[in-house]
Amino acid sequence: MDSSKQRDNFRMKELSEAVGDMTVSLHFDRRLYKEDIRGSKAHVAMLARQGIITDDDNQKIRGGLTEIEVEIEEGSFPWRPELEDIHMNIERRLYEKIGETSGKLHTARSRNDQVSLDMRMFVKESCVQIQSLLIGLQRSLLDLAESNQQVVIPGYTHLQKAQPVLFAHHMLAYFEMFDRDCVRFGQTKDSADVMPLGSGALAGLPYDIDREYVAKELGFSRITANSMDAVSDRDFIIDFLSAAATCSMHLSRLAEEFILWSTEEFSMVNISDEYTTGSSIMPQKRNPDFAEIARGKTGRVFGNLIGFLTTMKGLPLTYNRDMQEDKESFFDSYDTLYSTLSAFIGMVDGLSVKDDEVRTSAEGGLLLATDIADYLVGKGLTFRESHYIVGQISNYVLSKDISFRDLTLEEYTDFSEIFEKDVYEISVHTSLNSRDVPGGTAANRVQDALRESRLRLESGRFE
Amino acid sequence: MDSSKQRDNFRMKELSEAVGDMTVSLHFDRRLYKEDIRGSKAHVAMLARQGIITDDDNQKIRGGLTEIEVEIEEGSFPWRPELEDIHMNIERRLYEKIGETSGKLHTARSRNDQVSLDMRMFVKESCVQIQSLLIGLQRSLLDLAESNQQVVIPGYTHLQKAQPVLFAHHMLAYFEMFDRDCVRFGQTKDSADVMPLGSGALAGLPYDIDREYVAKELGFSRITANSMDAVSDRDFIIDFLSAAATCSMHLSRLAEEFILWSTEEFSMVNISDEYTTGSSIMPQKRNPDFAEIARGKTGRVFGNLIGFLTTMKGLPLTYNRDMQEDKESFFDSYDTLYSTLSAFIGMVDGLSVKDDEVRTSAEGGLLLATDIADYLVGKGLTFRESHYIVGQISNYVLSKDISFRDLTLEEYTDFSEIFEKDVYEISVHTSLNSRDVPGGTAANRVQDALRESRLRLESGRFE
Amino acid sequence: MDSSKQRDNFRMKELSEAVGDMTVSLHFDRRLYKEDIRGSKAHVAMLARQGIITDDDNQKIRGGLTEIEVEIEEGSFPWRPELEDIHMNIERRLYEKIGETSGKLHTARSRNDQVSLDMRMFVKESCVQIQSLLIGLQRSLLDLAESNQQVVIPGYTHLQKAQPVLFAHHMLAYFEMFDRDCVRFGQTKDSADVMPLGSGALAGLPYDIDREYVAKELGFSRITANSMDAVSDRDFIIDFLSAAATCSMHLSRLAEEFILWSTEEFSMVNISDEYTTGSSIMPQKRNPDFAEIARGKTGRVFGNLIGFLTTMKGLPLTYNRDMQEDKESFFDSYDTLYSTLSAFIGMVDGLSVKDDEVRTSAEGGLLLATDIADYLVGKGLTFRESHYIVGQISNYVLSKDISFRDLTLEEYTDFSEIFEKDVYEISVHTSLNSRDVPGGTAANRVQDALRESRLRLESGRFE
Amino acid sequence: MDSSKQRDNFRMKELSEAVGDMTVSLHFDRRLYKEDIRGSKAHVAMLARQGIITDDDNQKIRGGLTEIEVEIEEGSFPWRPELEDIHMNIERRLYEKIGETSGKLHTARSRNDQVSLDMRMFVKESCVQIQSLLIGLQRSLLDLAESNQQVVIPGYTHLQKAQPVLFAHHMLAYFEMFDRDCVRFGQTKDSADVMPLGSGALAGLPYDIDREYVAKELGFSRITANSMDAVSDRDFIIDFLSAAATCSMHLSRLAEEFILWSTEEFSMVNISDEYTTGSSIMPQKRNPDFAEIARGKTGRVFGNLIGFLTTMKGLPLTYNRDMQEDKESFFDSYDTLYSTLSAFIGMVDGLSVKDDEVRTSAEGGLLLATDIADYLVGKGLTFRESHYIVGQISNYVLSKDISFRDLTLEEYTDFSEIFEKDVYEISVHTSLNSRDVPGGTAANRVQDALRESRLRLESGRFE
Repeated sequence: MDSSKQRDNFRMKELSEAVGDMTVSLHFDRRLYKEDIRGSKAHVAMLARQGIITDDDNQKIRGGLTEIEVEIEEGSFPWRPELEDIHMNIERRLYEKIGETSGKLHTARSRNDQVSLDMRMFVKESCVQIQSLLIGLQRSLLDLAESNQQVVIPGYTHLQKAQPVLFAHHMLAYFEMFDRDCVRFGQTKDSADVMPLGSGALAGLPYDIDREYVAKELGFSRITANSMDAVSDRDFIIDFLSAAATCSMHLSRLAEEFILWSTEEFSMVNISDEYTTGSSIMPQKRNPDFAEIARGKTGRVFGNLIGFLTTMKGLPLTYNRDMQEDKESFFDSYDTLYSTLSAFIGMVDGLSVKDDEVRTSAEGGLLLATDIADYLVGKGLTFRESHYIVGQISNYVLSKDISFRDLTLEEYTDFSEIFEKDVYEISVHTSLNSRDVPGGTAANRVQDALRESRLRLESGRFE
Repeated sequence: MDSSKQRDNFRMKELSEAVGDMTVSLHFDRRLYKEDIRGSKAHVAMLARQGIITDDDNQKIRGGLTEIEVEIEEGSFPWRPELEDIHMNIERRLYEKIGETSGKLHTARSRNDQVSLDMRMFVKESCVQIQSLLIGLQRSLLDLAESNQQVVIPGYTHLQKAQPVLFAHHMLAYFEMFDRDCVRFGQTKDSADVMPLGSGALAGLPYDIDREYVAKELGFSRITANSMDAVSDRDFIIDFLSAAATCSMHLSRLAEEFILWSTEEFSMVNISDEYTTGSSIMPQKRNPDFAEIARGKTGRVFGNLIGFLTTMKGLPLTYNRDMQEDKESFFDSYDTLYSTLSAFIGMVDGLSVKDDEVRTSAEGGLLLATDIADYLVGKGLTFRESHYIVGQISNYVLSKDISFRDLTLEEYTDFSEIFEKDVYEISVHTSLNSRDVPGGTAANRVQDALRESRLRLESGRFE
Repeated sequence: MDSSKQRDNFRMKELSEAVGDMTVSLHFDRRLYKEDIRGSKAHVAMLARQGIITDDDNQKIRGGLTEIEVEIEEGSFPWRPELEDIHMNIERRLYEKIGETSGKLHTARSRNDQVSLDMRMFVKESCVQIQSLLIGLQRSLLDLAESNQQVVIPGYTHLQKAQPVLFAHHMLAYFEMFDRDCVRFGQTKDSADVMPLGSGALAGLPYDIDREYVAKELGFSRITANSMDAVSDRDFIIDFLSAAATCSMHLSRLAEEFILWSTEEFSMVNISDEYTTGSSIMPQKRNPDFAEIARGKTGRVFGNLIGFLTTMKGLPLTYNRDMQEDKESFFDSYDTLYSTLSAFIGMVDGLSVKDDEVRTSAEGGLLLATDIADYLVGKGLTFRESHYIVGQISNYVLSKDISFRDLTLEEYTDFSEIFEKDVYEISVHTSLNSRDVPGGTAANRVQDALRESRLRLESGRFE
Repeated sequence: MDSSKQRDNFRMKELSEAVGDMTVSLHFDRRLYKEDIRGSKAHVAMLARQGIITDDDNQKIRGGLTEIEVEIEEGSFPWRPELEDIHMNIERRLYEKIGETSGKLHTARSRNDQVSLDMRMFVKESCVQIQSLLIGLQRSLLDLAESNQQVVIPGYTHLQKAQPVLFAHHMLAYFEMFDRDCVRFGQTKDSADVMPLGSGALAGLPYDIDREYVAKELGFSRITANSMDAVSDRDFIIDFLSAAATCSMHLSRLAEEFILWSTEEFSMVNISDEYTTGSSIMPQKRNPDFAEIARGKTGRVFGNLIGFLTTMKGLPLTYNRDMQEDKESFFDSYDTLYSTLSAFIGMVDGLSVKDDEVRTSAEGGLLLATDIADYLVGKGLTFRESHYIVGQISNYVLSKDISFRDLTLEEYTDFSEIFEKDVYEISVHTSLNSRDVPGGTAANRVQDALRESRLRLESGRFE
């Protein structure tokens, strides 16, 4: 057989095949099987309650669906890509199992409201999953912070050393970010938590159905208020993509710091072996691959958001086939976030702080300049004056390549008569502890924050 | 003077000037003057209460700030672009007015927490403004729906006529979208509603300040919990940009429909003169320019979101100068949404529905095919059978270029013996009214929805 | 076995598994096998020529690689996901086949330059494939234009009828767009056409290698000029994503027109059955699903572009693991464009223009207003005057619900004495044919354009 | 007057005003005045040549336009925002100057082809401007590289030290990136270099015009081939936005490195005072504000690209008002790139490399591990063996906190008998110079590259 031909077969889909693929969604929408079956069961139960179908039909259909679910989970379900999607695969299988009765499942339901229902259920569950990972990551951050409570690191602005802070305080900043992410995924869950079944293709349905019953059965808080909106609304997907984008942005910042901190130059932390790759000949080289991949994947999560927003732009009501694009972008952002959060939990759990190097870094340099200026203000100078004087001292210190604590009192008083012996009381620790305001880096404030954060975490707010 | 040189001056900035411009933000951040002044006043009031400055200093500073506010509002304020931003402009002016005392305004505050405060106040107010326009647009939609309660239009899927719906029902679909937008801007307001002052440059401040007091004075619900997070958090900006993107997407859909509906081909509505541009020689040509511009501006609102997300990607803590990019993207999305919503209120208010053309369109074609199939199911046929029969009839009707109601009973019974005289009772109106489910297009349901929507609108939920 | 547990296994990856997946790229990068093998063969051939390895080693390695290629193409290759990527899979297999000698393949090559090489080869080939589909689509457009040469349609601005144009002229507008796309993919191919091997990990290699020889063997025009740039450059990927975005935008416009034109309202074309989906009960409903999906997929192609740009933002030199994100976005845009172009070729081939409906639409209304104004200008009136007069006539014609040709000469002269009998010579055809400028819609100009386009198409410019 | 009312006037536009603003483009499109006037002059010259207007009219119109140009450049032009755009402003002014004759300027031209012409001229010129700045930046990079030819720095992968490279080699990597950017802007210029006048509103024009003459007069290479495409094509804008995005991405990488390198931790370079901001009390703090702003602005340039792509998505032919959005995104990307490139030229010119610190950094650590492995391979070991041995040595060296050159020969031979005295010949310089391949970091190769780059730069390729 001709191998170049075969190559083309392997690599390039035939034109017609390429085209055919455009309508096949089974490879990704089969993830919805659980929701699809659960939704169908609630639907036929309602139909039977309302006398639209018989109890017997209801039993038969539900029985068939249960068998199908088992088949799927056991791996024995006969997937047929030529049927294009998960819904047709289940319907055909149900027909094989229970015959014509299976057709009654279509009563008072259209594909448009069914697809919306499945996605809403899946998104709700996904929000819960992501929140649970976020909480896991917060817990890891708290653990890390607590087991490094004494560690002081340089705080940066513009990536320049600015003021000493507690390492725990720095970790708590991320705790706050992920807390907001939890809130955002909670809002997304609310946004998805509206039951669309009963909207029909677009106009509602000519049956005496009980939408509230279905909503209750499936754990929805409320039902959609307008059938045309219900079948064309994908806001809840965009809310998810958007929450995922912000969360990824936060993770990219943490990733960036892990990458920086594990350079030879910063030398502040060690990422554990599982999350680095080395080089057989350069064992010192610990490439922070996971942090890099996580940072890199921010791009795709942003891309999914803008991509699906673009898809929805300018679509007239109601359903348009363009909207089938909601699934892949959603699944991709969900999976990406799922893996990335998992990786961060592992990375944070395995992170070790290089105490000695970090202390040296925080104590060196001119990190206490602000505190000396504050000292002078405390002695009655204006900001302007004290800043001027400290600037002079800093230049002197830099030129001699020493640090503040190496200055003699004489040297100090050469710059200003106001200096007294108590200037030597200024240290990294007095600096930290002077910032004794709510949200500040003083040790007691950080302890309070750790305690409060732990409480918040275990409060079950997002359950 | 050489004109080609001059041209360059007009069009191309000199290299050094171009560079200098990068740090000047006055042309956009001067919009923050009100927030900046209000924030400063609350800050000095707190400082005086805590005994950090004297009452006298407090009075002097507040007096100076009030004068400055008046100057700005009266247009007499001496703006100095060379001072780069609104904060420096106000500070310099305050110094001119009250001298050295003005320096005390810096006590226990840094530029980092000050900028965050101003933006948070502005974003909160912007959410209120946008919600108020959204509610205005919802009101216009309700008015339009109510004054066209009898109008039936074709409902579309895939831009193909599918089933008749009430025009009011269609408008209510947009009511729902804008309702979700209101919720989203409410959540954004909550996200901005956290008081950052007291975070200092990054680590907190060495003063006995009362952050809760400042929060209360400025109408904030709570204070930021971590100083490092506080100065590097721009989530509330992203939340706004994100809510704006979804809202713009909704508007682009409505714009698309207005554009389609005002074509000669659809001929469903007339957009009023103010919102169309004509042609002196083609008076029939009513270009829906505003709807087009609104649709087009969706792009920039999406761009602002992705742009600022990109800016924030991978920034280490805490403040980095990159973050000054938050303002322009925010202001641009806010202004764009503001104008676009205003234009839509005007467009909806001036919209007239072409009753006759629309009725003809809704009654023609095969819009009732679904209803005839439902009729057969009602008589006991399975879906499969009834769909097959109606397909046959539709083909027949199409081939003869007639519509269903032109068929004789004999013709009907040729397709199935089950048809009886009552098939003639099927009409656009029975079709509509059969969809008598919550959220459906039946007249009574739409009336309920109108009433409920009006109540929701006037409930003051977002105040 | 517990089925809820199993469900989780099916749907939710375990934490550690989720993390592990982040570094596995085999499921997508195995598409590079051909390029990887071809590149390796050229590399060892060069090493042997330079005396760095023996001829015998060269033969052994090449033999092993050929066997591997056959295995892959025959489907017998033992893929091992745990080896993460295509490169490791091939290396391990080669080791199994030829033992220690396989290690020599690594001589004077690093993973960084190897990966870049493979992608560059793949991108070059992809550009050729896409160009070939673009040319196929252009051919279909020309065929369609030629077989409908007499068909006049309304030309639109603002989706309002403006002036009559030939249908062929409209199709030629898209011919031009796809021509520019071909140029853009040609430039992308040039951008990828630089041979990176020999750059090593980042600094070059300590061997006497012949980079030009490898380039020639693999059909590259030139070699990379700087090793650090070579391993961190992904511009050629971005160029592809960018060309794909513009091309998708063009396709979205054509899709939009196909969707509009196949509405009942516009009723200008029929899309063939293969590219529409119907409804068993509404046979008239021909949902243009492929056009909608194509339009919808524009979003993901835009998303891939912005996503990967974001990934690359702010990465320091040289290689960072973030860059592994280049592949999926590239493959996705390539596959999407491949399918979409294929679908459009099919759609255009099967498109039929509804001659009668279209003619009626083009002849009705006030499409000739511009021509009547031009007529008056030809008789000596100023623009201002003639526009005023034609505006009056148009209003008159609209109010009587007639068209221009229904006016009597008396009615004409009531508006202006200048009108003469020759005003009746103005028709859709004189209108068209008066636009006798290069690029205009006059029949002879369109014929010229068709001829010229055909020549351009068959010139082999992009080969 | 009520001040809260006034505040609203200052800050919030009235509804009707907000709406009105949507169609006003004068504040940004007045930048097109030069192109508009030049285009009009060429147009009337052609009309006169073809006998469509008289020579006298031609002279009058051209005279009037020249006066207007002078007024604009002298600042005496009476701008009228209520006329919405630059075109109407010029037309009205021309009427004031020469009366009715001014109307003849409209002969055989529509706003649609005129706007396209102006933008194409502006984009062409902008490409030239950006290329010129890119070349300026390349020159600065070469100067910097040449004046630091001996400087060795650590080369990084994954931000981990990998192999020593010449600083000049690193700078040349950016030279290559900006070279590709120049090519891309050259392609964009080609893409814009097509003359659209003569396309009319959409269909061509009923006049015997000479399009080629106009093209030649205005310096265009060719004319548009299809009138409908001509008025709806904005590819050349997207090409610009896209080239700008890639260029910004490159700049963001350089910015990132400048930021990293100027940290206390990396301590590799000093950015000059003009491009940093300090702190009065922390003179050592040199915040790299310009590099940060440049990195931050990448977001908006990406946003402009995706924004305008989104705007164009799904627009039917021909002109739609949405397309007026092309200008602001273009101007913003152009201006941003203009400032950012200017800033980088200044930054590179003022950059000083901290020779001593950098040398220490490059010589320390295990940067030579690869070279020692290559040494062993040179002595006959396989890769596998040599990597294993060097790994052992590296661990030993790390554990003793020494570097390779501190090892005795005995210590070496403890790991492998193969080591000989010549192992001490391995140094940063032998390492560098062994990478003696085209594109490698060996000193002679870098010298070649500097020479070749200088030649390329001065070749005038892009003129």
